Amino acid sequence: MADGPDPIEAAVRALRRLPGIGEKTAARLVYWLLRAPDGTIPAIVDALTRLRAEVHPCRVCGDLTATNPCALCADGRRDARVIAVVERPQDVRAFERAGEFRGRYHVLHGAISPLDGIGPSDLNLRTLLDRLRDGTVQEVIVATDPDVEGDATALYLARLLADVGVRVTRLAHGISVGTEIEYADAISLGQALHHRRPIGGDGG
Amino acid sequence: MADGPDPIEAAVRALRRLPGIGEKTAARLVYWLLRAPDGTIPAIVDALTRLRAEVHPCRVCGDLTATNPCALCADGRRDARVIAVVERPQDVRAFERAGEFRGRYHVLHGAISPLDGIGPSDLNLRTLLDRLRDGTVQEVIVATDPDVEGDATALYLARLLADVGVRVTRLAHGISVGTEIEYADAISLGQALHHRRPIGGDGG
Repeated sequence: MADGPDPIEAAVRALRRLPGIGEKTAARLVYWLLRAPDGTIPAIVDALTRLRAEVHPCRVCGDLTATNPCALCADGRRDARVIAVVERPQDVRAFERAGEFRGRYHVLHGAISPLDGIGPSDLNLRTLLDRLRDGTVQEVIVATDPDVEGDATALYLARLLADVGVRVTRLAHGISVGTEIEYADAISLGQALHHRRPIGGDGG
Repeated sequence: MADGPDPIEAAVRALRRLPGIGEKTAARLVYWLLRAPDGTIPAIVDALTRLRAEVHPCRVCGDLTATNPCALCADGRRDARVIAVVERPQDVRAFERAGEFRGRYHVLHGAISPLDGIGPSDLNLRTLLDRLRDGTVQEVIVATDPDVEGDATALYLARLLADVGVRVTRLAHGISVGTEIEYADAISLGQALHHRRPIGGDGG
C-alpha cells in the first residue's frame, strides 16, 4: 500500500519466515494482531524474547530448557539406569505426554543422514558416552524415528555402544493403536507381522 | 517438561493466541524458532513491536498505516472523485493487488450485523460523511462482502447517502473468473444470470 516497506509489510515479511506460514496467512495474522486485545503483541514479544534469552541445551542430556541441568535430569525420582535416546526435544515432550517412561533422556539433535551431510560428529553423542562411563546406566533405548535416518542412527548407536556393556534396545515397530489394518502402511504391517507375539504371552 | 511454566511452554501458549494456530502448530513453531538462524527471533520481535507502536488508523480513510494521512490518501495522483468503501484494511490490499482501481478508499472496520450487536454507530462512518461534504466525491462504490452483513451495510449506505448527491454503486456479483459453471454456487450463478449483459455490449 505504501511506496516503501511499512510496518505492516515488514511484519508480514517477518512472519513469513515461519515454517508453513505463507503470504496470505502472514497477512491474516498481522491484521488480526492489529485488532487483537491490547496485551497480545507484548505477550508474544515477551515470550519470544524470553525464549531466545533463557533457553539453552541441558549440559547433561542436550534437551532445550531454561535450567541447567534440565528439570528431568535434576529429578532424582527418574530412573538413572535407563536412557531413551531421541532425535529432537519435541520427542521428549511426546514421551512425557505418554507418561509411560520413567527413565532419563538424551537428545541427539538430529539423525545420521549422509544425503544431508549429517554424520555422527554432528550429533550430541560425546555427552552420551560420558553418561555411560560410571556404570549406572544399564539400558539405552534408541527412540529414533522409524525412517531411513532413524534406522541408520540406531544401527550406529548399537555398534558404538556394543563394547560399553549396556543393553541397547529399540522401540517396537508395528501398526499404531487405532489404525485399521485396511489402511495400515505395508512396512508397518510387515514389521507388526514379523514381531508378532503370543496372545497372553509376554505382555501386550 | 518443567514443573512450572518455562520459557518454551510460555512461548507455545503465546503463539496459541494467534488464530488458526493450535497447540501442535505452536509447539512446532517454537522448536523451529529455537533452531532458526540467529537473527530470526529479533526480526520477528522487532516487526511486532513496530507494528504495535507505529500503525494507526488513517484520520481520513481509516485504513491502518504508519503515516497519517496514509500514503493512498496523500497521493495526489489518486482520483479523489471516487471512493471505494470496504469493510477491512485487507480489502484495500486486495484492490491494490488487482491494480484496477485508481480512486480512494474508506475502511469501515466492520459491517452491520445485528446478531453480533454491530450497528452503524460501530462503523467508521462519520469521517465518510465528512469526506463527502465539499462536493469533490461523485461516486461511492460500496465494496462490502457479498454476504448478509455486507448486503445490510450496502443497503444502509445507499439510504444514508441518498440525499448527499453522490452516485452510490456496488461491486458486480456473479461467477468468479476461472470458476467452472458446474461448481459455481447457486446464489452467484443466480446473480450472474440476473445481471447478464449483451455480448460486445457495455464492456466485459
